[in-house]
Amino acid sequence: MSLLKNNKFTTVKDVADIEGLMGKALHYKSNPFVDKDLGENRKIGLLFLNPSLRTRLSTQIAAQNLGMEAVIFNVDKDGWRLEFEDGAIMNGSTSEHIKEAAPVLGSYFDILGIRSFPTLQDQEEDYREGYLNAFIQYCGKPVISLESATLHPLQSLTDLITIQEEAAGKEKIKVLMTWAPHVKPLPQCVANSFAEWVNAWGKAEFVIANPDGYNLSVEYTQGATVVHNQEEALQNADFIYVKNWSAYEEYGMMPGLHADWMLTNEKLALTNNAKVMHCLPVRRNVELSDEILDSSNSIVTKEAGNRVWAAQAVISELLKMNS
Amino acid sequence: MSLLKNNKFTTVKDVADIEGLMGKALHYKSNPFVDKDLGENRKIGLLFLNPSLRTRLSTQIAAQNLGMEAVIFNVDKDGWRLEFEDGAIMNGSTSEHIKEAAPVLGSYFDILGIRSFPTLQDQEEDYREGYLNAFIQYCGKPVISLESATLHPLQSLTDLITIQEEAAGKEKIKVLMTWAPHVKPLPQCVANSFAEWVNAWGKAEFVIANPDGYNLSVEYTQGATVVHNQEEALQNADFIYVKNWSAYEEYGMMPGLHADWMLTNEKLALTNNAKVMHCLPVRRNVELSDEILDSSNSIVTKEAGNRVWAAQAVISELLKMNS
Amino acid sequence: MSLLKNNKFTTVKDVADIEGLMGKALHYKSNPFVDKDLGENRKIGLLFLNPSLRTRLSTQIAAQNLGMEAVIFNVDKDGWRLEFEDGAIMNGSTSEHIKEAAPVLGSYFDILGIRSFPTLQDQEEDYREGYLNAFIQYCGKPVISLESATLHPLQSLTDLITIQEEAAGKEKIKVLMTWAPHVKPLPQCVANSFAEWVNAWGKAEFVIANPDGYNLSVEYTQGATVVHNQEEALQNADFIYVKNWSAYEEYGMMPGLHADWMLTNEKLALTNNAKVMHCLPVRRNVELSDEILDSSNSIVTKEAGNRVWAAQAVISELLKMNS
Repeated sequence: MSLLKNNKFTTVKDVADIEGLMGKALHYKSNPFVDKDLGENRKIGLLFLNPSLRTRLSTQIAAQNLGMEAVIFNVDKDGWRLEFEDGAIMNGSTSEHIKEAAPVLGSYFDILGIRSFPTLQDQEEDYREGYLNAFIQYCGKPVISLESATLHPLQSLTDLITIQEEAAGKEKIKVLMTWAPHVKPLPQCVANSFAEWVNAWGKAEFVIANPDGYNLSVEYTQGATVVHNQEEALQNADFIYVKNWSAYEEYGMMPGLHADWMLTNEKLALTNNAKVMHCLPVRRNVELSDEILDSSNSIVTKEAGNRVWAAQAVISELLKMNS
Repeated sequence: MSLLKNNKFTTVKDVADIEGLMGKALHYKSNPFVDKDLGENRKIGLLFLNPSLRTRLSTQIAAQNLGMEAVIFNVDKDGWRLEFEDGAIMNGSTSEHIKEAAPVLGSYFDILGIRSFPTLQDQEEDYREGYLNAFIQYCGKPVISLESATLHPLQSLTDLITIQEEAAGKEKIKVLMTWAPHVKPLPQCVANSFAEWVNAWGKAEFVIANPDGYNLSVEYTQGATVVHNQEEALQNADFIYVKNWSAYEEYGMMPGLHADWMLTNEKLALTNNAKVMHCLPVRRNVELSDEILDSSNSIVTKEAGNRVWAAQAVISELLKMNS
Repeated sequence: MSLLKNNKFTTVKDVADIEGLMGKALHYKSNPFVDKDLGENRKIGLLFLNPSLRTRLSTQIAAQNLGMEAVIFNVDKDGWRLEFEDGAIMNGSTSEHIKEAAPVLGSYFDILGIRSFPTLQDQEEDYREGYLNAFIQYCGKPVISLESATLHPLQSLTDLITIQEEAAGKEKIKVLMTWAPHVKPLPQCVANSFAEWVNAWGKAEFVIANPDGYNLSVEYTQGATVVHNQEEALQNADFIYVKNWSAYEEYGMMPGLHADWMLTNEKLALTNNAKVMHCLPVRRNVELSDEILDSSNSIVTKEAGNRVWAAQAVISELLKMNS
C-alpha cells in the first residue's frame, strides 16, 4: 500500500496516509541506510530555477541514502532560460521551451524535483502553478516539488515530524503560525503549505495570527482560526511557527511593516513554554530576535536537519510506486 | 579491437568503426548497466566553458552507468578565466594558463570532456580549434569533445543511432539537413558535424539545403548535395535535420534572416512523411513551428534521450583503451 | 594513535605527527583505493565562499577515493550571502546567519570543508579568522580549511610531500620561498602556511626572500631566515617556492611592484639546480617566466597533482577520529 495517493508530491493532497508518511520519515531518521538498495541504478534530477541551501542538500543526501545518483541542475546558471508560454514565438530571451526540456529531462531521470518561485506580480498566474504543472505534464516522470509558487510540501512534512518528535506524549497541542516582519515581499508558499498540512493532519488546535491585510488564501487556511491579535494568539501555544509572507489579497504587497510582530522573550512568556520553529533562512532581529533563536526554545536547526528524512520518505515511496 | 582509431573523440575521424560504435550505443540503450564494473575507481572530469543541459546531464549519466565518478566543473563560474595564448604576459583578466590547468586536470581524471564554443569573430582562429587542441596537447589523458568550436561529435553519433532506430528495415533513406531561421548568429558545429558523420556513414542519400550565403565548409559537406531551394530538397525526404547556423564564408554573419525557411506542416507534406530532428535547444515558432514539434513526426526529444547511449559507448571505448 | 591533535585541520598546529601525515599521504598516492570502505555512508560537504579549481576537485576526488559522498556547495551562487556578525540586525543584503547555516550543514554532513578568503581591508579582522572560527564553533562537526583568510594547510601538506618526493635521499636541503610580482593584491595565506609548515617540519634550511615592505607576520616566519636580497637567497637553493603576497604590515597594499623579482633562468643558475614550486594558479611572465615553467626544473603540475593525496590523508584521519 503506497503512502502516496498520486505519482507525485506537490501538495498534501498527493498523500494517502499522512501519519504513515511521517512514521516512515522518522524511521529513516533512526535507520538512514536501511533502504540503500532501493535506488540502485536509479537517478533523481534536482532542477533549481531559484537558489536553495537546505532543500538542495537535504534532498541530495536523502537520495544518496537510498542509493540513488542525485544530479543537481541550476537551470538558468548551468543552462539557459526556459519558455513556459504556450504558442510563444521564441525570438526573445528564452532559449528552450518546457515542452522540449521536460521530456528530455524525464528521459534522463527516474524522478524529477523542481524548485520554481512565484513572481509575486500576478496572483492568478502564480496560483495556477504553470511552471510546476508544465513540468508534470510534459516530463513523463514522477515530480517532487522542491518549493513551487504556492506550496512547499517537503518543508511541511518536515515540520509535522518535528512537532511530533517534540510533542511526544502530549495529549493536546496548540500550534500557532504567526506572521513575522521582513524587509522585502516573500512568497506565501511556506505558510500556505504549513496551513494545508496541519489542517489535513488534524491533530492540533491550529491558530494563524497575522496583521490586517495579510490573510492567506482560505483554500489553505480553512479549518484554522485566523486572528489579528498576536498576543491573544500566543496564549498557551505549544508550538510557534514563525514566518513572513507578503499579502495574498493585495497580491505581493507589504501593507504595513509591523516591526512589533517580531517574537521576543516577553511574548514567549505568554505561551506554554512554546517551541519556536522557522523554515530558514531567517533574518535575525527582523523576523526573529537573537534572544529567541539562541534560547533552548528554538528548534529551528533541528527542524532543518529533519528535512533529510522527509525527503527520503517521499523519494522512497515514489521509487516503490515506479519499480 | 577498439571501435576508436585514436585515444580521443573529437571528430568522426577518431572512429575506426562507425556502425560498430552505433551498435554499441544501442546495446547500452537496452542494457544500461551491463558494464557497471568497467569504470570502477575511474573518474571523468567534464569541463564547461559554456552552458549546457543535454550534454552535461547525458554525459554525467553515461559515466555513472559505467560505474564512474563524474565531476562537473564550470570553468569560468567555479574557477577563473583561462589563458590559451602561447607566450602571453598574463597581466590581464586571465588567471591561469592552459599549460598548467590541463596537466593538473589530467592528473585528477582518467578521461576529460571539454565544451568550448567558437567566438564567431575569426574563422581561421575558430577552425584551428585552439582551445580543444591545447587541452589535448597538455592534459595527457583521453579527451572527449562536448562540443568544440567546429564540431559536436556526441550529438552526431546520437543522430545516427536515432536515424537507424527510426529507419529500421528501410532499404534506402533520404536525409535532408535544412538551415532554419534564428534570432542570433549560432556556431556551425552541429551542422558541420552532422554532415561529417552522415557522409562518413555513407548509408543515406544526403542533401543539405541552405539559403545563399550560408554554405558550410566543404571540408565537412563534401559528399552531400548542397542546394538553395528548400522546397525541392524536401521532396521524398525520410528525415529532416533542422538547424540554424551563421555564415561560414562571411564568417559569423547572418546574410538574410529568411523567416520563410521555418519548417511547417505544409512543407512537411512534400516529404515522405519525414521524421523531424533537431539537436535542441530549439526556438519554437522561429526555427521550428509548434505544429511540427507537437506532431508525431517530431522525434526531437527521443533524439535527445539517445544522447546518453552515444556518450556511454564512447566513454566505454576510451575506458577499455586506457585500462 | 591519530596523526591529528585536534578534531579539525586548519593549521599545522592541528597536526600531531607531521611526518606520519606525510607518509600517509604518499601511501595513498601508491594505493588510492585501499581505504574505500572507510567512508561508506559518510558525507563531506565542501563549501566555497570563493572560487577554486584544484582544491575543489582534489578534495572531492580524495573523498570519493575513501568511498564518501562529496557534495559541493557554492555558498553565494547556489544559495545566498551569509551574515557572520554577532547581534546583526539583518535588514540588508545577508539572508542567513552563520549561527543557523553552520549547525544545519553540520547536521547534513560528517565532515565540512570551508573556503573563505580574506577581505584584505582590515588586518585584525582577517587574522581573527572570524568566518572559519564561526563555522567551527557552530557546525558541530570536524572542519577542514580549504583555504582561510590566513592559512592554506592542505596546500602546505601537499608542498611538503612534494619536497620529500623530490629530495629523496638528499641529506640537507635548502628551501627558499621567494616573493614574486603580481598585478593585484593577493592574500598572505599560502605564504604564511608554507612558512608555518616548513618551520614545524624542521628538516630544511629555510630562507624567505621578499622586498622591503613585504615581510610576513613573524607568527609564521619565526624560525626562517628572512632576507631582502633575492640573488643572495638563491645561492645553493634546492627548492624555490615562488609566491606573490600583498603586504602584511601596510595591510593589503602593494608597496612596490618589483617586476625584477620574477624568476628567470639566469637567476635559477645561481641555485643548486633547484626545483621550482608554485601553488597555482600562476600568471605566466608576471609571477614566473615561460622559460622556468616550461623547463624540467618546474614541478608545479606534479605538486598540484599531489593535492589529492594530502586531502585524502586528512579526511581519512578525521573519519577515523569520528567513527
